[in-house]
Amino acid sequence: MNAYVMLGVFQTSQKLRTSLRLLSRAGLPPVDLQVQLLLRGRSPQSATFSRELHLGPDGPASSPAAAPRRLPFSRVTVEDLTFFGKTLPGRAITDPDLVQSSNEDWLKSVRGSSEVLLRPQTTQEVSQILSYCHSRNLAVNSQGGNTGLVGGSVPVYDEIILSTSLMNSILSFDKISGILTCQAGCVLENLSLYLEERDYIMPLDLGAKGSCQIGGNVATNAGGLRLLRYGSLHGTVLGLEVVLADGRVLDCLSTLRKDNTGYDLKQLFIGSEGTLGVITAVSILCPRKPKSVNVVFLGCETFDQLLKTFQLCKGMLGEILSAFEFLDSECMRLLNTHLKLANPISDCPFYIVIETSGSDSDHDSQKLHNFLEEAMTSLLVTDGTVATEESKIKTLWSMRERVTEALTHDGFTYKYDISLPVERIYQLVTDMREHLGKRARSVVGYGHVGDGNLHLNVTSPAKDPALLASIEPFIYEWTAKFQGSISAEHGLGLKKRNYIYYSKSRPAVAVMGKMKTLLDPKGILNPYKTLPDDLK
Amino acid sequence: MNAYVMLGVFQTSQKLRTSLRLLSRAGLPPVDLQVQLLLRGRSPQSATFSRELHLGPDGPASSPAAAPRRLPFSRVTVEDLTFFGKTLPGRAITDPDLVQSSNEDWLKSVRGSSEVLLRPQTTQEVSQILSYCHSRNLAVNSQGGNTGLVGGSVPVYDEIILSTSLMNSILSFDKISGILTCQAGCVLENLSLYLEERDYIMPLDLGAKGSCQIGGNVATNAGGLRLLRYGSLHGTVLGLEVVLADGRVLDCLSTLRKDNTGYDLKQLFIGSEGTLGVITAVSILCPRKPKSVNVVFLGCETFDQLLKTFQLCKGMLGEILSAFEFLDSECMRLLNTHLKLANPISDCPFYIVIETSGSDSDHDSQKLHNFLEEAMTSLLVTDGTVATEESKIKTLWSMRERVTEALTHDGFTYKYDISLPVERIYQLVTDMREHLGKRARSVVGYGHVGDGNLHLNVTSPAKDPALLASIEPFIYEWTAKFQGSISAEHGLGLKKRNYIYYSKSRPAVAVMGKMKTLLDPKGILNPYKTLPDDLK
Repeated sequence: MNAYVMLGVFQTSQKLRTSLRLLSRAGLPPVDLQVQLLLRGRSPQSATFSRELHLGPDGPASSPAAAPRRLPFSRVTVEDLTFFGKTLPGRAITDPDLVQSSNEDWLKSVRGSSEVLLRPQTTQEVSQILSYCHSRNLAVNSQGGNTGLVGGSVPVYDEIILSTSLMNSILSFDKISGILTCQAGCVLENLSLYLEERDYIMPLDLGAKGSCQIGGNVATNAGGLRLLRYGSLHGTVLGLEVVLADGRVLDCLSTLRKDNTGYDLKQLFIGSEGTLGVITAVSILCPRKPKSVNVVFLGCETFDQLLKTFQLCKGMLGEILSAFEFLDSECMRLLNTHLKLANPISDCPFYIVIETSGSDSDHDSQKLHNFLEEAMTSLLVTDGTVATEESKIKTLWSMRERVTEALTHDGFTYKYDISLPVERIYQLVTDMREHLGKRARSVVGYGHVGDGNLHLNVTSPAKDPALLASIEPFIYEWTAKFQGSISAEHGLGLKKRNYIYYSKSRPAVAVMGKMKTLLDPKGILNPYKTLPDDLK
Repeated sequence: MNAYVMLGVFQTSQKLRTSLRLLSRAGLPPVDLQVQLLLRGRSPQSATFSRELHLGPDGPASSPAAAPRRLPFSRVTVEDLTFFGKTLPGRAITDPDLVQSSNEDWLKSVRGSSEVLLRPQTTQEVSQILSYCHSRNLAVNSQGGNTGLVGGSVPVYDEIILSTSLMNSILSFDKISGILTCQAGCVLENLSLYLEERDYIMPLDLGAKGSCQIGGNVATNAGGLRLLRYGSLHGTVLGLEVVLADGRVLDCLSTLRKDNTGYDLKQLFIGSEGTLGVITAVSILCPRKPKSVNVVFLGCETFDQLLKTFQLCKGMLGEILSAFEFLDSECMRLLNTHLKLANPISDCPFYIVIETSGSDSDHDSQKLHNFLEEAMTSLLVTDGTVATEESKIKTLWSMRERVTEALTHDGFTYKYDISLPVERIYQLVTDMREHLGKRARSVVGYGHVGDGNLHLNVTSPAKDPALLASIEPFIYEWTAKFQGSISAEHGLGLKKRNYIYYSKSRPAVAVMGKMKTLLDPKGILNPYKTLPDDLK
């Protein structure tokens, strides 16, 4: 099920949409949808303070997450629309109802006011569009599956939306090497199905796989559930084709595992969130489909025991370990309460999901058996269940994968995606819980232990600026103190761009700014995203 | 044994060294050592034509591999030496005999004429040196273990040599995550020994491990024997500390598996061959030490059978496969003839070295047994032997690792490192053999089948410009026709910089040039390397 449809909680009127457009035309910044809802009935002019995505405790003071003022890009004219219509016959969309869903992120937390949605099918078309927009100084927001969490995938103002959805062809697949080449708009799940028929799998897997596109995955350096085993996209992506801001096509679409001829330019686009170029095609190294998959769901009394279990697991399962995920008892409570999912084992403070995948089911079972025996005997885990059939595997995985969904039913959710030395990751949850006390409804922790990646979520009955002010910058300062990353896999997008200095040094950010200027001198690609305002 | 020492074939006189220095002072380019030897007795002036590294068949016509004219960098003055001496007490070397070995690559194929060797111990010292050199417009050649094959690690003219050899401290190792942080000058083998004591291994392994340094490995994006299993350095390197051309320290020394806060700048330095910055520290993700290692040596009748064996192997050995290497019968002949190594199996046209590493020796043996049975029954392989003891494992591996050494005894060697779709790799050897006919003494092929990486070597009794003219550009054109890379893992350095267009598009190379200008506007870092002359 598409998470976007699933979470369609808010309904907005045509009137509101019109006033949003008016706000944008007036040069006012975009507004957080929830704030907009509060503002219904007020005149657009009174909404000036709503430029804050998050309002601080002292009222209209600017939050680092708020959108900056609109930059002086050109506005789309009738002549522009004529050009787009000619270049993309029937695929330059201006119907507000059709453009609307691309203006809004799937969390419905931010919304732009673009009036044009372009749906190219070829690299050549993308090149023509960007060349034109560059010459006209028109800003462009490239968009894949629009499943991002940091407001990076939708326009902030009236940027033209360049969707890769129709660029969904598989270009080649080499059965000997496992190298897949495809257009950027291929949906991750479709690629997975294509590969599974050919005895291969994608090296990444995400909850959003039904909607997210490989181009967006690469542009955001998506992590997900298989990173522990197959590594990051910086290792598995072998080639990219990218259209630069001025329409030049940068062909780095190598299908080779090794190529040391000059700088590896494609790396710069992996994780650049569409701000340096538009990825139009990807080649990626795919692993063989494992012949045997097992999933174990375990319970631990303490996080320390959980970490010891991880160590034991790495040693005893070794090369067949493909995921080591965790959730805490608060997550389990939300799964029970909101989704009626029953705990498959007895109640514990911490739960682990371990996946193995290998080439010999007997060997894998035996390794798993030995590991479980050792984990039980040494009292690291208190309860557990194993699944080898596909349906039970799915059930166990859903305990981990559906936490996000359960959270949306618990109230307004403040979402954080933190990377820390693995022994620190739960300490942040404990500290946050103590720090917030009764101000939060729930403080939950789950994530990828194997990658040192914690998803910390705080819910409250409704949006709560005072609560937010208690969370931030506390969480960022805590993370910086332990040399963590304030965005492990979600990126910075609009919402977190100004927090970059918590994880990156000023000289490093300055170099990033120069890279941006080098590749996109007019700054038309995904403006207001990724880089902090002080660079502009 | 250090390969440098091992291959010390040529002896040069102090007189010759002096004349080399004179040549350099006269603004003449460096010369190939073999050509120099031919020139003994001639006056320096008559050596003008020797600016060519490789002489074409028509005499003095310029070869793309020849060094370009010296760029107008400053020359080292007494004041400069005073500064270096103060900054690095006792570690600013000017004794010609001590500087000499750093001027020459280990193949003894190229030689610069630097008169200063700097040996900093800290990042701060590197920063001070570069800041000074930048302000004085002095060119700098950073040098690790000096084990490169493309003339990238030694000066071309009088560039100051900045050696990382004394930057050899391990900074931290996290036993839970397996993340190692160390200075750039740590020798790969030393890191391996350090890790093995802690139950981990380095994710890369090379023949040059006894001399090469991790900083140089990263700067050249070294591939090696474990890439098939653990992937490239773009995936395993988590962080870098780099000193930029002007002395600014770029701290991207993250020790996190995931960090999506802005552009991943460190990636740009991986494989940039010291032309964008000097790597001073590295953090890298290390795999657990396997509990069981097996090596198999097999023989095949045809390369097609070898490829089928690879496919079978990937399916049946799956997650325990850690290397799949090959050599041809010509390699075996050279091993027999020059190193007196006996073929461990019966004579075959092709030989395979397969390594497995896993966490359970019984399981691994059984998987290997099943695979071998299937490979024999289906007549893919005709003979084979298995090793599980360390000494026999070493013996079998030496059949693959010592081919390079055997080649040096066969005559002057023209070395190529080609990446191709795996099904093409041996076709190039066959075509080359046919193309060269009796002009070559030996044409041998070996390499990393799993990575599609062929090492093609051609030997002749002595340096032979006519033979070279038959090899190049034939080999590059052939490679380009099949979308291969003309340098899979060796890099471009001095020798191959002008061949970049065979593997990279003009727009891509143009962007590389802009990156270089952005990060090193005066071009003082490792000049004349990696990027083609037409960019300058």
